Amino acid sequence: MELVTGGAGFIGSHLVDALVEKGKKVRVIDNFSSGRMEFLSHHNDEVEIIKCDLLDFESLKKTMQGIETVHHLAANPDIRLGTQVTDTDLKQGTIATYNILEAMRINNVTNISFASSSAIYGEAEEMPTSEKYGPLLPISLYGASKIASETLITAWIGTFGGKAWIHRFANIVGPRGTHGVIFDFIHKLKKTPNRLEVLGDGFQEKSYMSVSDCVNSMIHLIENANKDVNLYNLGTGDTCSVRRIAEIVVEESKIDQVNIEYTGGKRGWAGDVPKTFLNVNKLLETGFKPTRMSEETIRDCVIDLIDEIGL
Amino acid sequence: MELVTGGAGFIGSHLVDALVEKGKKVRVIDNFSSGRMEFLSHHNDEVEIIKCDLLDFESLKKTMQGIETVHHLAANPDIRLGTQVTDTDLKQGTIATYNILEAMRINNVTNISFASSSAIYGEAEEMPTSEKYGPLLPISLYGASKIASETLITAWIGTFGGKAWIHRFANIVGPRGTHGVIFDFIHKLKKTPNRLEVLGDGFQEKSYMSVSDCVNSMIHLIENANKDVNLYNLGTGDTCSVRRIAEIVVEESKIDQVNIEYTGGKRGWAGDVPKTFLNVNKLLETGFKPTRMSEETIRDCVIDLIDEIGL
Repeated sequence: MELVTGGAGFIGSHLVDALVEKGKKVRVIDNFSSGRMEFLSHHNDEVEIIKCDLLDFESLKKTMQGIETVHHLAANPDIRLGTQVTDTDLKQGTIATYNILEAMRINNVTNISFASSSAIYGEAEEMPTSEKYGPLLPISLYGASKIASETLITAWIGTFGGKAWIHRFANIVGPRGTHGVIFDFIHKLKKTPNRLEVLGDGFQEKSYMSVSDCVNSMIHLIENANKDVNLYNLGTGDTCSVRRIAEIVVEESKIDQVNIEYTGGKRGWAGDVPKTFLNVNKLLETGFKPTRMSEETIRDCVIDLIDEIGL
Repeated sequence: MELVTGGAGFIGSHLVDALVEKGKKVRVIDNFSSGRMEFLSHHNDEVEIIKCDLLDFESLKKTMQGIETVHHLAANPDIRLGTQVTDTDLKQGTIATYNILEAMRINNVTNISFASSSAIYGEAEEMPTSEKYGPLLPISLYGASKIASETLITAWIGTFGGKAWIHRFANIVGPRGTHGVIFDFIHKLKKTPNRLEVLGDGFQEKSYMSVSDCVNSMIHLIENANKDVNLYNLGTGDTCSVRRIAEIVVEESKIDQVNIEYTGGKRGWAGDVPKTFLNVNKLLETGFKPTRMSEETIRDCVIDLIDEIGL
């Protein structure tokens, strides 16, 4: 049995789909703060759903019984929230990961696959940024909690044994997206169809990967990377600017006249990293190839989300 | 007014001495779990001592009033403890640092100097290891909590502003040492004078720095490094083996016949890193020069601790 934390969320629910497709039995644990039951409603007995917060350690311990591999995807999904409630990422990120590891230790569960993030690199001086880049000076509390979780995992393996896959995600986009720039743009256009406000100067530039490529690469690595700790950047090896995303959203909206307005400044918000560009050579060397690059990924996601959200 | 957390501890009390010597007023906060009042008893009105645990956030908030720079040295001092009580470093390290930062934010305190550790590098492939080394895969829960704290600090600066000095310590030794290999060896000899048990094969090799060089380099960096985030390895640029330390302890003990016994294996305990060797070029380039190298530092410390502990 596989355990997926945050399994009712955006990436988590796609991972559940992919695991079920491979014939696995899956237990989902989610507090449904941003996850949605409907993302899993197409599954039957092969998926067991448990509503539980990872901070509820006693319940978590029970859900760990009989698990082969933990896919730990639960987290605060909104980087910007850390600027308002400063302990969100500490609790939902770092302490939640500690609880997972302790529950694993008590139940003799030894395998963990963890969703980390390019946010850990902060404003990296090396572009594209490889897994060996240092020092890690993240500028968001979200990024800090991801490194804290990564290192809790490596320390756990070093101290108690086991096996870990750490995936440092580019921006992951696709159907069921519940947050992020594309999601925001479509909701803004829905509210005011002739005006699209972009946070920052729009020159922010990031790596985007489709959610299906993301979950397939995670599973590929679990099957093919066999060190005690396996650390990989997941992405496409290119980038797309926020300006280009705004243009694509406007194009696909089919609305004739949209005025794109920039609030200015190189960051969208405090903690926003102006440019992230992941070096994914290590991933490519394992034989995995993403099916789509950043811009195509974004256009597909825009089409899917306009369909889901409506305009 | 300067705040020193863990100011009654080994390194903390030496830092208090050095700050007072520079004419500063100092407030010490310590939970006295390993700190000792006698380490500060030679001070008068220039040092204010507050007994408080960093997990007591309400009290912590009050101690932050009127502070210019926080010197955050409090932590669980014993790396090995993490293997028994798995949340020690999470609480005393990561969550304590979060509390410090939040108390600073509320009180508009913007400067923090933080005692990190070479333990963050785990079993580094690059020797000597520079600040740019990655990926950081610590194997102890102590090391994990130090990275978690470092990145909480950089995220805080990125999100709310301020200034930070992060010091990645080599093994720091000297008078008032309350733990560590030299302290252990002397206590073992005191118990069984003709037998010295060494954990591991003794080929573990680490960088050692005297506590006076350590606190002087910290103050030097605060005065001379002016980026938003200033990250430095602190050490001597050489190493000494555990075998050599055992020999020096036996020599200085003046006991005639001591049988040194090795328990074997490359680690002293789960989470012990067999070799750490810090590249300190960045520190040296600021104009700071340690007064003693590793072996001389160790011999001086052995003499001091034999004098303190008695044989």
